[in-house]
Amino acid sequence: MMKFEKGDAETQTVDVGGGCVFGGPRLVIIAGPCTVEDRAQTLEIAAAVKEAGASMLRGGAYKPRTSPYAFQGLHEEGLDILAEARANTGLPVVTEVLESADLAKVAAVADMLQIGSRNMHNSVLLQAAGRTGKPVFLKRGMSARIEEFLLAAEYVLETGNERIVLCERGIRTFETVTRFTLDLSAVPLLKQRTWIPVAVDPSHGTGMTSLVPPMACAAVACGADAVMVEVHCCPDKALCDGDQSETPELFYRMVKELRTLASAIGRTL
Amino acid sequence: MMKFEKGDAETQTVDVGGGCVFGGPRLVIIAGPCTVEDRAQTLEIAAAVKEAGASMLRGGAYKPRTSPYAFQGLHEEGLDILAEARANTGLPVVTEVLESADLAKVAAVADMLQIGSRNMHNSVLLQAAGRTGKPVFLKRGMSARIEEFLLAAEYVLETGNERIVLCERGIRTFETVTRFTLDLSAVPLLKQRTWIPVAVDPSHGTGMTSLVPPMACAAVACGADAVMVEVHCCPDKALCDGDQSETPELFYRMVKELRTLASAIGRTL
Amino acid sequence: MMKFEKGDAETQTVDVGGGCVFGGPRLVIIAGPCTVEDRAQTLEIAAAVKEAGASMLRGGAYKPRTSPYAFQGLHEEGLDILAEARANTGLPVVTEVLESADLAKVAAVADMLQIGSRNMHNSVLLQAAGRTGKPVFLKRGMSARIEEFLLAAEYVLETGNERIVLCERGIRTFETVTRFTLDLSAVPLLKQRTWIPVAVDPSHGTGMTSLVPPMACAAVACGADAVMVEVHCCPDKALCDGDQSETPELFYRMVKELRTLASAIGRTL
Amino acid sequence: MMKFEKGDAETQTVDVGGGCVFGGPRLVIIAGPCTVEDRAQTLEIAAAVKEAGASMLRGGAYKPRTSPYAFQGLHEEGLDILAEARANTGLPVVTEVLESADLAKVAAVADMLQIGSRNMHNSVLLQAAGRTGKPVFLKRGMSARIEEFLLAAEYVLETGNERIVLCERGIRTFETVTRFTLDLSAVPLLKQRTWIPVAVDPSHGTGMTSLVPPMACAAVACGADAVMVEVHCCPDKALCDGDQSETPELFYRMVKELRTLASAIGRTL
Repeated sequence: MMKFEKGDAETQTVDVGGGCVFGGPRLVIIAGPCTVEDRAQTLEIAAAVKEAGASMLRGGAYKPRTSPYAFQGLHEEGLDILAEARANTGLPVVTEVLESADLAKVAAVADMLQIGSRNMHNSVLLQAAGRTGKPVFLKRGMSARIEEFLLAAEYVLETGNERIVLCERGIRTFETVTRFTLDLSAVPLLKQRTWIPVAVDPSHGTGMTSLVPPMACAAVACGADAVMVEVHCCPDKALCDGDQSETPELFYRMVKELRTLASAIGRTL
Repeated sequence: MMKFEKGDAETQTVDVGGGCVFGGPRLVIIAGPCTVEDRAQTLEIAAAVKEAGASMLRGGAYKPRTSPYAFQGLHEEGLDILAEARANTGLPVVTEVLESADLAKVAAVADMLQIGSRNMHNSVLLQAAGRTGKPVFLKRGMSARIEEFLLAAEYVLETGNERIVLCERGIRTFETVTRFTLDLSAVPLLKQRTWIPVAVDPSHGTGMTSLVPPMACAAVACGADAVMVEVHCCPDKALCDGDQSETPELFYRMVKELRTLASAIGRTL
Repeated sequence: MMKFEKGDAETQTVDVGGGCVFGGPRLVIIAGPCTVEDRAQTLEIAAAVKEAGASMLRGGAYKPRTSPYAFQGLHEEGLDILAEARANTGLPVVTEVLESADLAKVAAVADMLQIGSRNMHNSVLLQAAGRTGKPVFLKRGMSARIEEFLLAAEYVLETGNERIVLCERGIRTFETVTRFTLDLSAVPLLKQRTWIPVAVDPSHGTGMTSLVPPMACAAVACGADAVMVEVHCCPDKALCDGDQSETPELFYRMVKELRTLASAIGRTL
Repeated sequence: MMKFEKGDAETQTVDVGGGCVFGGPRLVIIAGPCTVEDRAQTLEIAAAVKEAGASMLRGGAYKPRTSPYAFQGLHEEGLDILAEARANTGLPVVTEVLESADLAKVAAVADMLQIGSRNMHNSVLLQAAGRTGKPVFLKRGMSARIEEFLLAAEYVLETGNERIVLCERGIRTFETVTRFTLDLSAVPLLKQRTWIPVAVDPSHGTGMTSLVPPMACAAVACGADAVMVEVHCCPDKALCDGDQSETPELFYRMVKELRTLASAIGRTL
């Protein structure tokens, strides 16, 4: 039997500190900029999402980009900014790590290590991240079947680290209006197959600001334990992914809707 | 400007009789067997779904099947059974039509004509169905982009018939655990692009009984006006699609959940 | 056992008249305009493709279009023009039929009935076309698995009509540079599974003029019995699919390449 | 302008030693086991493929596997065996590297570094591999668009290393009979867009032994500069990918067919 398999077990909780627990009755809302662009931008967004009800801060210091000429992130400087944002807001931080060589630096700051979609099949990185003992936020590969996603999680579990969260973030299909096709059926499927908490990223999953709130609601309605959302104070000026970012105002309204929904289905936020 | 485009318009309502109105505050729940197998089976299911809160009856008399050797439906006899089920329960009936030559027969019984996924690109059938003046329930082709789906609706609208409902029912992707990938982002996308009411079929969209209730909830949470669900008293013995059918008990529980959800988001059921 | 299954049988030949035989040692080259636009255009192209070495003429009189406002074909007038083109060139004609009601008219002119990609799942049309006794040119649905393609052919075979040719024409994938992804592995797969001859349409399969000749060569190299290519004298002015049409000059060069290739693998052209 | 863009340039040649040159008139045939299982197996296969006409040896010492419990390769021991196989046969060796930390070890033995499909988006590894100065064999990600594939190559080129070969190896689609869908249209597309030589891997691209020879022929017919094929003396006992491996006998016959084809299109082998 694989370690990810559920048997009779309930969803296991993953406590990442700062009162943020995945897999319990309280929904986790992760919010923040796609990329840590500079100190002012990140601190402003962190304060805004905290105010609006987020329970965790996201933000990329190391960015995997399709083109070598696109902005690749602030690296160590970005990590320092994230640490400052955490100190200011009390929000724990999740940020992506791209290769084993960076793990020590990233793990020194992050409360949770994100393995992105492009690295879901990177077994070397999965094992190394697992061995740090830090909680791992694992995104589904954009062309990964559910079984492959669970086997990627198994690479982390096999190191003895059980603090992991799975995140559906959209799969690649023939549809071109949306950036990816958010596969929400993955949520109940995963909840039925594994005890690992499940998150959804509707920002990458749709690529369109206007679709993020309804899809966040849908994610919660079908059982997601967490939602990860990109928020930017000036989406028009974002260095990356502005088209899929919420303003703090839109985010605030979305959290309100999610709160109503959560209470209707016996959860809190 | 295409006729399907929204501009400033609200979602338009489609009244199919029997108190069943698509696109208003009240959610429409369409339920029934995949196929009209015989009189007893259909009348029993119709009574059960009515009792559980369905507002419309579905059931196939003409079935499009992948293999020529699979059961193709009871045809006229099936239509007669559907008419009797309506007389018994008061539920209006939606049933599929496969070709123009059958339109008169089907339209004489059905309150709403279903154009299935395999025929979404069948412009000849779309126009002929439109011309009957009957409400049309148009399912998305399994490999149709949103724009193509809307243009298929335009074939109906262009005949002057505006009583149409669009139904997301899953698209074909690389995922193999589910029968199709239910693309719920189509719901808010369509609501933003058109005034036509939007339905979701989680039974075909997932192909798994256990995924239907959570995905029905997700559909409602992101704005669907209607949900279409397959119900069978003995899914094990169903001639078609037993793996994705709810029992009346499961359906009853699902409707209860949907009612709670609906009231949380300002709708009724 | 399904009628399409091969067992120990060789590929069966389908003779459509005018010396054009599918499935034998001689490759069949089908060429012509996407759409019969007018008499002059069609007669000019027919003469040019005959001259260049085509063995069959293609051209649409009934066009399935995504938008109801796009040109839908000349219908009966288009069929008359095709008949004249055949009389001038001696090339047998294949043309698409969209619904059963048109079958008599189309079958009166066409030497071979084309069932297009959008209608591959239209079992009613498949059976009606089969019953005419005319040879059927069946295109793969854009999201049909090989097994479904073969079962669609079974709908024709089951009527007793064994004169059928299967045509790979591209499937829908996430790739966006090409119009579809031409799945050439379908060619050897089908040759191993069935005795039905196999054709390839690289024009629709790629959507790009410059990719048609190399993909036609690839199709022949992996065993295709026929190639269907769109040719237009002024692709820039084509009412439909100009981006994927060859000029007569390009087509002439392509046939020459195919002839060299055919002789290298023991076939003729 | 990106470094990969063609402009007026011809395909550039990549010389990997041992008389093996990609992108010239002579086709390169890369063959060998999926995985270096043990010394005897690898030396036997190496001798057989050399005898049959291969110009390069493939074999995995570091294997990316979906499950952590599957055989992950012999690592350094595997590299030693590959070095011995090269010494015996004179064939240069291409083998996969999974992370930057292994680059020095792998580059010390390999004549060419393979970046596999799962790592095509791994920009860190691409840059590190580029910086070794070794030739790079870059496989297309299983869900990468052509443009993303070219941008991945740009990560290598940007380090100043221009010795790179692109390899189409199948993309993920809805088709389930084949393991992936080999997208041969990528070959002429890439040849028109870039000066980088193009290879095709029909073994992974189809996943079926019987489809490899026809698809290798198709690849050559549409312009591929190289073909990579898995060969195993006992496919039934292979630790990995036996279903898609050729026996030496089948491989020998395939090379013969390719030779005939090559000469018909003005190339050699």
